[in-house]
Amino acid sequence: MANKAITSRDVDFAKWYTDVVKAAHLADYSNVKGCTVFEPNGYAIWEKIMQELDKMFKKTGHKNVYMPVLIPENLMKKEGELINGFAPEVAWVTIGGQKELEEKMCIRPTSETLFSDYYASKVKSYRDLPLKYNQWCNVMRWEKETRPFLRSREFLWQEGHTVHSTSEEAEKETRDMLEVYKTFFEKFLAIPVITGRKTDKEKFAGAEYTLTVESLMYNGVALQSGTSHYFGQKFSKAYNIEFLNKDNKLEYAYQTSWGVTTRMIGALIMVHSDDDGLVLPPNIAPNQVVIIPIGDSDEVNKLTNDVYNKLYDSNISVYIDDSDKSPGFKFAEAEVNGIPVRIEIGSRDLEKGIITITRRDTKEKLEVSKNVDIVKYVKDLMSTIQNDMYNRAKTRRDSMTYEAHSLNEVENIMNKQPGFIKAMWCGSEECELKMKEIRGTKSRCILENAKPIDSKCAICGKDAKDLVVWGIQY
Amino acid sequence: MANKAITSRDVDFAKWYTDVVKAAHLADYSNVKGCTVFEPNGYAIWEKIMQELDKMFKKTGHKNVYMPVLIPENLMKKEGELINGFAPEVAWVTIGGQKELEEKMCIRPTSETLFSDYYASKVKSYRDLPLKYNQWCNVMRWEKETRPFLRSREFLWQEGHTVHSTSEEAEKETRDMLEVYKTFFEKFLAIPVITGRKTDKEKFAGAEYTLTVESLMYNGVALQSGTSHYFGQKFSKAYNIEFLNKDNKLEYAYQTSWGVTTRMIGALIMVHSDDDGLVLPPNIAPNQVVIIPIGDSDEVNKLTNDVYNKLYDSNISVYIDDSDKSPGFKFAEAEVNGIPVRIEIGSRDLEKGIITITRRDTKEKLEVSKNVDIVKYVKDLMSTIQNDMYNRAKTRRDSMTYEAHSLNEVENIMNKQPGFIKAMWCGSEECELKMKEIRGTKSRCILENAKPIDSKCAICGKDAKDLVVWGIQY
Repeated sequence: MANKAITSRDVDFAKWYTDVVKAAHLADYSNVKGCTVFEPNGYAIWEKIMQELDKMFKKTGHKNVYMPVLIPENLMKKEGELINGFAPEVAWVTIGGQKELEEKMCIRPTSETLFSDYYASKVKSYRDLPLKYNQWCNVMRWEKETRPFLRSREFLWQEGHTVHSTSEEAEKETRDMLEVYKTFFEKFLAIPVITGRKTDKEKFAGAEYTLTVESLMYNGVALQSGTSHYFGQKFSKAYNIEFLNKDNKLEYAYQTSWGVTTRMIGALIMVHSDDDGLVLPPNIAPNQVVIIPIGDSDEVNKLTNDVYNKLYDSNISVYIDDSDKSPGFKFAEAEVNGIPVRIEIGSRDLEKGIITITRRDTKEKLEVSKNVDIVKYVKDLMSTIQNDMYNRAKTRRDSMTYEAHSLNEVENIMNKQPGFIKAMWCGSEECELKMKEIRGTKSRCILENAKPIDSKCAICGKDAKDLVVWGIQY
Repeated sequence: MANKAITSRDVDFAKWYTDVVKAAHLADYSNVKGCTVFEPNGYAIWEKIMQELDKMFKKTGHKNVYMPVLIPENLMKKEGELINGFAPEVAWVTIGGQKELEEKMCIRPTSETLFSDYYASKVKSYRDLPLKYNQWCNVMRWEKETRPFLRSREFLWQEGHTVHSTSEEAEKETRDMLEVYKTFFEKFLAIPVITGRKTDKEKFAGAEYTLTVESLMYNGVALQSGTSHYFGQKFSKAYNIEFLNKDNKLEYAYQTSWGVTTRMIGALIMVHSDDDGLVLPPNIAPNQVVIIPIGDSDEVNKLTNDVYNKLYDSNISVYIDDSDKSPGFKFAEAEVNGIPVRIEIGSRDLEKGIITITRRDTKEKLEVSKNVDIVKYVKDLMSTIQNDMYNRAKTRRDSMTYEAHSLNEVENIMNKQPGFIKAMWCGSEECELKMKEIRGTKSRCILENAKPIDSKCAICGKDAKDLVVWGIQY
């Protein structure tokens, strides 16, 4: 019995997505055009994401800072490619304190400019390096359409910005952070990812190269899920970040930046959730376990509190739903909100010596002795759920990952069931544009050190350079 | 031997303040006029503040959300007093995506408008109430001068916004949150506060009344440190937040809001710090303990690691400074950065069977057996430091809290050594304005249920209504 407020995902995926967002109270459209409200259930996921990622950043030697939200036009313009890339989609403040500003300022679409300007004033010697900073903040890009978490004018993200004394160290940082993202997606979000390098056409404005983490949604559409950029000396030359190297010579510094956004919440929904609502992997669920007491006997109350205390004391995020609502209503609510484990403690079950534990991901009901070691049981079950969710997502992703050797094959696949398509590429933008004519198919990334599947470009038939993953994108 | 980069606070308090901010790498001016950069040491304090306050908010039933950063002009205008209060100091976005906007939008100076607009769409029945939401975010007010943490165009804060079905419940919330702030200031920041009600002149635009937490800096200047507002039905009428009450009748809802800001970091500096730099209470210090090994013997290294592991495993925030710098340099750095406890482990001390532990607040050096139960010792010491810091701040605050019965007395006090002045007030704005002529002295708050110290207003001599605390403000 699927949730009536939710369209089936196999009938209308886009409608299903917004239905789940609404039914699970994750986000809502606001009266500020192009912006969404992050409601408590949605923001709690972001808090959990921040908490876990932040630990990984700090463990790898990064520190958090906070830069201004406004960027003066002339500072923004210093690095030409960046302004060209972002100018069409920024919001400009032109009036402050009732006065027309002498110089307009944009709300940050990203903060390379401010970090570079700051680093220029701080970095003097190789001894000051590396500086590895990160910030959690809001950014704004003037998008035309809005889809909660996936595309909106304002979104939340983290942006890491680092500066190094050698290109080797900066390139290593670029790869290390890509690896952090990959680990985070797999271990916490239970989402398998493909990693690789963006083509020049798709890379970040101002980067030497961009590495990317790409995931595939339930409907076969690809999502760029996180990027890590190597800047070389592009920004340091534009913003004048020079340092005295070990040979006592002035040298421009080497930089990186890397970021992931609230879009990850969209990925969580589109990879794992179903027609009953949200499904969350235990490792990222703000609430991992709900206990629903049924009836009001002393035994029910005692065991409910006992189970709650044991789980709580073991750092499992648990709550008791002892509201006035009916058990059926509570079950449906826990389901739509994606609580991974539901424990029902009822008088009739207790007479049989059992409690009932339900997995949200499979909806399997497990009858468990009331004397079970509940902490061990729940921990094992959560670990099983986490693994199963990853494996199911991977199996599905793999089943929608194809190889193609010609435009014709690409077209057939994309018209039947889109997914990731591996195909050889000659390296020309012309071929990328031809690919785009097929339902907007774009290069997701170049697979590095991959074994070629053909010697010729699947598009033009000339000599191939790289194996590329292609997809239709959000 | 005071830090040479820091002006003495008794010589030039304002200069001392900015010197400490710079020397401890808390913040820096940026090339964005009126905005500051929160550097790692400063932002880490904010992270710790967020962490601890957030726990208190959640424990009292609040949930975090995130509202858009932009507010359309017409939404802002709905509540007349609010727009009148903030219009002179907002930043307006007039261009988005290269197009002139049809309606300009301001960067939030505060979010009553957006929360009210959201609540209007969600609240239908008394069963939906209360909704108790909070958000951590950046806000912008177009200030003219900038002082790191105290006054800048952009700052970070939390704003709680709640909506209730009865005025009693909303008023209780207003007072409860004031109590949370008071507890936080005393328990974590080691800063004593006076609580009370703002006069009508000083209350928040749009509030029925404003409760406030007021603290006194080392130099006797007062700082408004946190406010909690009761709105009654003012916003619900303007934004149409109506619900069906228990009698099945439509009623306007009752609201509150409350907030504290990064200004608290300024208070920490100005209450506790000294001519050697930052002094932080252990309960809010991002790094509570630094271990400095001196020499490189096996015994030094073994004990250093041993002490580190024991403290770390007991959830004490500790780090080892094993950099190439000289011990003297490391001591000075730990001092200027305000690390509450410094543990020196050196070969010569170890021969005598001791290690040296130094308190940052008093600079007292303690010789401690190398076999001490280090976890217990450090925990006890931190608790002593925390209490001592609070008591010293309270003694100083009390010594600068005066009573006055006439304008003349007020003038004498404020010209000699400013501080908090308790004086009776008739309730007229005229008298407040007269008081302001004395070095800008303003009412800090009305002490509620306080025993009168006189029957007449200290300013005009007419019948007094309230006992008021006055001060020169930041």
